[in-house]
Amino acid sequence: MPTSIVHIGSVTIGGGSPISVQTMTKTDTRNVDETVAQIREISAAGCDIVRVAVPDCKAADALAEIVPQSPLPIIADIHFDHKLALKAVKNGVCGLRINPGNIGSRERVKAVAEACAGAGIPIRIGVNAGSLEKELLEQYGATPEAMVESAARHIRYLEELNFTDIKVSLKASDVARTVAACRLFAKRFGYPQHIGVTEAGTEHTGLIKSYIGIGALLLDGIGDTIRVSLTADPVKEVLAGREILRALGLLPDVPKFVSCPTCGRLDFNIRKYAPIIEKEVEKLGGNITVAVMGCAVNGPGEAKEADVALCGARGYAGIYKKGKLVAKTGEENLVETFMKVVKEVLAEEEGERI
Amino acid sequence: MPTSIVHIGSVTIGGGSPISVQTMTKTDTRNVDETVAQIREISAAGCDIVRVAVPDCKAADALAEIVPQSPLPIIADIHFDHKLALKAVKNGVCGLRINPGNIGSRERVKAVAEACAGAGIPIRIGVNAGSLEKELLEQYGATPEAMVESAARHIRYLEELNFTDIKVSLKASDVARTVAACRLFAKRFGYPQHIGVTEAGTEHTGLIKSYIGIGALLLDGIGDTIRVSLTADPVKEVLAGREILRALGLLPDVPKFVSCPTCGRLDFNIRKYAPIIEKEVEKLGGNITVAVMGCAVNGPGEAKEADVALCGARGYAGIYKKGKLVAKTGEENLVETFMKVVKEVLAEEEGERI
Repeated sequence: MPTSIVHIGSVTIGGGSPISVQTMTKTDTRNVDETVAQIREISAAGCDIVRVAVPDCKAADALAEIVPQSPLPIIADIHFDHKLALKAVKNGVCGLRINPGNIGSRERVKAVAEACAGAGIPIRIGVNAGSLEKELLEQYGATPEAMVESAARHIRYLEELNFTDIKVSLKASDVARTVAACRLFAKRFGYPQHIGVTEAGTEHTGLIKSYIGIGALLLDGIGDTIRVSLTADPVKEVLAGREILRALGLLPDVPKFVSCPTCGRLDFNIRKYAPIIEKEVEKLGGNITVAVMGCAVNGPGEAKEADVALCGARGYAGIYKKGKLVAKTGEENLVETFMKVVKEVLAEEEGERI
Repeated sequence: MPTSIVHIGSVTIGGGSPISVQTMTKTDTRNVDETVAQIREISAAGCDIVRVAVPDCKAADALAEIVPQSPLPIIADIHFDHKLALKAVKNGVCGLRINPGNIGSRERVKAVAEACAGAGIPIRIGVNAGSLEKELLEQYGATPEAMVESAARHIRYLEELNFTDIKVSLKASDVARTVAACRLFAKRFGYPQHIGVTEAGTEHTGLIKSYIGIGALLLDGIGDTIRVSLTADPVKEVLAGREILRALGLLPDVPKFVSCPTCGRLDFNIRKYAPIIEKEVEKLGGNITVAVMGCAVNGPGEAKEADVALCGARGYAGIYKKGKLVAKTGEENLVETFMKVVKEVLAEEEGERI
């Protein structure tokens, strides 16, 4: 079942919309110039939404200057203090991340929910295994069950106020708990999910934890917007997020590329040509599948499934268009011949679309 | 339910054994020196098992020289020709990868099964979406169902000969089909699985497809041995395989490292110190969890779950041992102070083990 829909500025999240990529600025939010500069960088890297931490009043004030300069819709990340939330909404953010259960009285929650409803902006409830409520920890430990129960409580606070413009995240610093919590949540709730492995670590292992956790969930159809968390430059987080979408074929108009690992059966030097062809095909873009294969064991099968394929044979390469052999070539002119066929296919598909 | 067990030389696969990492040589198998040199390289990178393609009689003959020089158990990868399989077994390989349905008559399959049984070595049935049987393709298309049905056929060939020393792989060049096929197989069969995304592509996207596909399956408890396939150096495949195991906490005696992405709430320059601490902790090894956190929102929670944690506060770092604050330090002496606590924990755990 598709999740419900929320809007962060012009970006639609949930209900089967394209998966958006987000990250968080790592500058001091009170430093407007640095923060805006970082937002521009991550926007250029392909980010859809940016979140900024608002730890104090000065940071909330800075939003008044940051928001109008930002090329991306901004979400304010706030803990504990509902006044910062109210100020952030007033200063034009497109969404809040705040856990209603942490900001005190029902009156305070109500004030925040009313402000968001008035501005037409959603609230993300962001549950982290590292900051669960004490009584849930005592009852469940820091388990997926405790994480979902925590989300359920925060959701109840808002639903009781008839506020349902909600997005939820459930994150742990290990992949297994993160994935289990998000799966459990998806069984119980229809709210869209922001997914990511939190505090995944440095680029060294954090990237791989993020690839696996976010990837496994997206494969299940869970996750409406994604955030890779690394102790590193936020541009790297954005690029990693986009790589995940690309690897799963979730980026529109990005070619799919298949190439064999090569082995002792290799009939043609594809290790040299695969990266070259990949780059050339990516330059063109378009929704096509390209395969570069070294021998006749899996080559012909992959050629059948690809729009354009190269299959190494003894001393030459066969080039296939939609599974049919259309050219044989040596290394000379290989890339040119291959790309000519790619362009033909793209032109034909363009023609069909018109 | 645990899978059944097979042995590849001294490596046990299945039944809950540690997940082994394998790759394939990319040299011409007939070139003994080059092939042995490559096996040594991948062994040094942490590989557990190596596969070599045996496309012809000379390659099968070369095994007689390669096997005694190899630091790793060798699996011969053979297609279509049962005589190559018989020769490989005679030449001392520790396993075969061959699809019984592809090598002709029942007599031929029987000869191979008997040779393997005599040598006490298993057979891997390796189903690839790119080389499915024509009639299965017609009935199902190149779907997970067709892949599992193909495996079932090959298994039947061997089971009818009372040969059950079997391992199976089901691979496609896209993540979703690979994962779906392996899940479907695990529901129907108890044989151990060799998992991987085949022809995943170049390092550019192939790595990420492999991380996601292999990682998602391992998270489900599926997969007994893994192979990352890249159009690249096999050493990179081995390192990537090990990275996946590390990211999921499946490598023994490798510390788990948690560090926050930092944000506008950052109280301490952890981006500088997280990679340094990570490296120092890795040098020591050991089964501990270490967290490096920038602020008080998730810091204390992660500190509670970690054996040793650093949590940034205004201008200093709190160092926690098993959730208890044991030191406060500035940047000076930070790494030394942290590592002293790490060593204490390791020594205490070592003491408990003795």
